[in-house]
Amino acid sequence: MTYFRPVALEHASRLLNHGPTVLITSRSRDGARRNLMAAAWSMPVEFSPPRIAIVVDKGAHSRLMIEESGAFGICVPAAMFIDTTYAVGSVSGAEEDKFSRFSITAVPSATLNVPLIEQGCVAWLECRLLPESGAQEKYDTCFGEVLSAAADERVFQNGRWNFADANASLHTIHHLGAGNFIRSGDTLRAKAP
Amino acid sequence: MTYFRPVALEHASRLLNHGPTVLITSRSRDGARRNLMAAAWSMPVEFSPPRIAIVVDKGAHSRLMIEESGAFGICVPAAMFIDTTYAVGSVSGAEEDKFSRFSITAVPSATLNVPLIEQGCVAWLECRLLPESGAQEKYDTCFGEVLSAAADERVFQNGRWNFADANASLHTIHHLGAGNFIRSGDTLRAKAP
Repeated sequence: MTYFRPVALEHASRLLNHGPTVLITSRSRDGARRNLMAAAWSMPVEFSPPRIAIVVDKGAHSRLMIEESGAFGICVPAAMFIDTTYAVGSVSGAEEDKFSRFSITAVPSATLNVPLIEQGCVAWLECRLLPESGAQEKYDTCFGEVLSAAADERVFQNGRWNFADANASLHTIHHLGAGNFIRSGDTLRAKAP
Repeated sequence: MTYFRPVALEHASRLLNHGPTVLITSRSRDGARRNLMAAAWSMPVEFSPPRIAIVVDKGAHSRLMIEESGAFGICVPAAMFIDTTYAVGSVSGAEEDKFSRFSITAVPSATLNVPLIEQGCVAWLECRLLPESGAQEKYDTCFGEVLSAAADERVFQNGRWNFADANASLHTIHHLGAGNFIRSGDTLRAKAP
C-alpha cells in the first residue's frame, strides 16, 4: 500500500521550496548499477517547466552516473528516515550497492528508469539532466527538468505541504551539519502585504 | 547594540545549509539606489572558498542591479520578520526604495557596499557575483563568492545554528508558498553510521 499520489508538474517546485535535505538517486547508463547520496544543496530554479538545480561533487560516484545516464531522481526523506539519510551520505557507492547495504526499497521511475524511494520518503521527483558544462565544471551544479513527481498524501495535499503535530514522523528534515537536522516546524502565515 | 558576530568563512555555508528563505539585497553601480527581494531559492555550492547560488529572475529589478554592480547580499530573516519578508517579495523595487517603504534598517557591507539587514534578520553574507552567462541566461541562477558573513550570537554559535524553544522568534523561516512558511523546528540528531 502506498500513500504516494502524483503531484501536478506546476506544483513540483513546492516539494523543494522550503529547502529540505534530499536523497539523489542515479543509475548507470545500462541500468545495471544504481546509487544514492544525501544532498543538502538543491533548489528549484523555474516553476514551469519545473526545473531544479542540485550540487553533486565531480568526485562523487553519483556524478558519473548522472552524466552518463542523463537522469537522476530526487527523493525527500522524512524524519523517520534520518539515520539512513545520514548513513548514505557518509559512504561511497563506488564499491557496493547502498540500497542493498541499507535495505532501501526502490522502484524504477516511469520514464527514465531511475530508482525512486517511497518507504521512508514523502516525495520524489524524476529528472532529466539539462547539461550545462560551465556550471557543472566550475560549481558542481547540475540542472534538471522534472518529468514527474509524487508525494505522500498524508503530508502533501492539493499542491501544499501540510505539516502538523500528528504527522511529525513524516516531516521533512533539513541538515545543519554533522548529523544534526532540524525538522520542519510549525506553519506560520504571513500577513497579506 | 548588535548581537551579530563574524562567522568564519569556512562556516559560511552552514548559514544556508538547511534551506531558509532569504532576502537578497543589491545596489546600483554608483551606490545611489538599493533594493531587496525575498528568495526561497538559494543554496551553497562550495565550502571553501564559500560559494553560493541564488535564483533571480531576469525581469527582476534586483537582477539588473546585481549584474551592474557585481555584488549582492544575502540576509536570513527570522520568524519575527515574516510579514516584512513576504511584503518585500510581493512588490517591485523599480519604482521606490523598499527599505524606506517598509522601514527596514540597512548597513553597508565592508567591502562591496551592499546593504545588509540585521534588525529582523539572524545572519547575512556579503557576496561578489561570479559571472556565469549560461546558468544566468538559461536558469536565472547567479553564483557568488562569500567575502564576509555574520550571524546573531543568540542563535548561531561556534559555527552552528542553535534553535531552541527559548529563541523561537529568531528561528529561520522556510517558504512553502503563498505566504505560508514553516519555522525551523526541533533539532534531531542522526545516529552515527
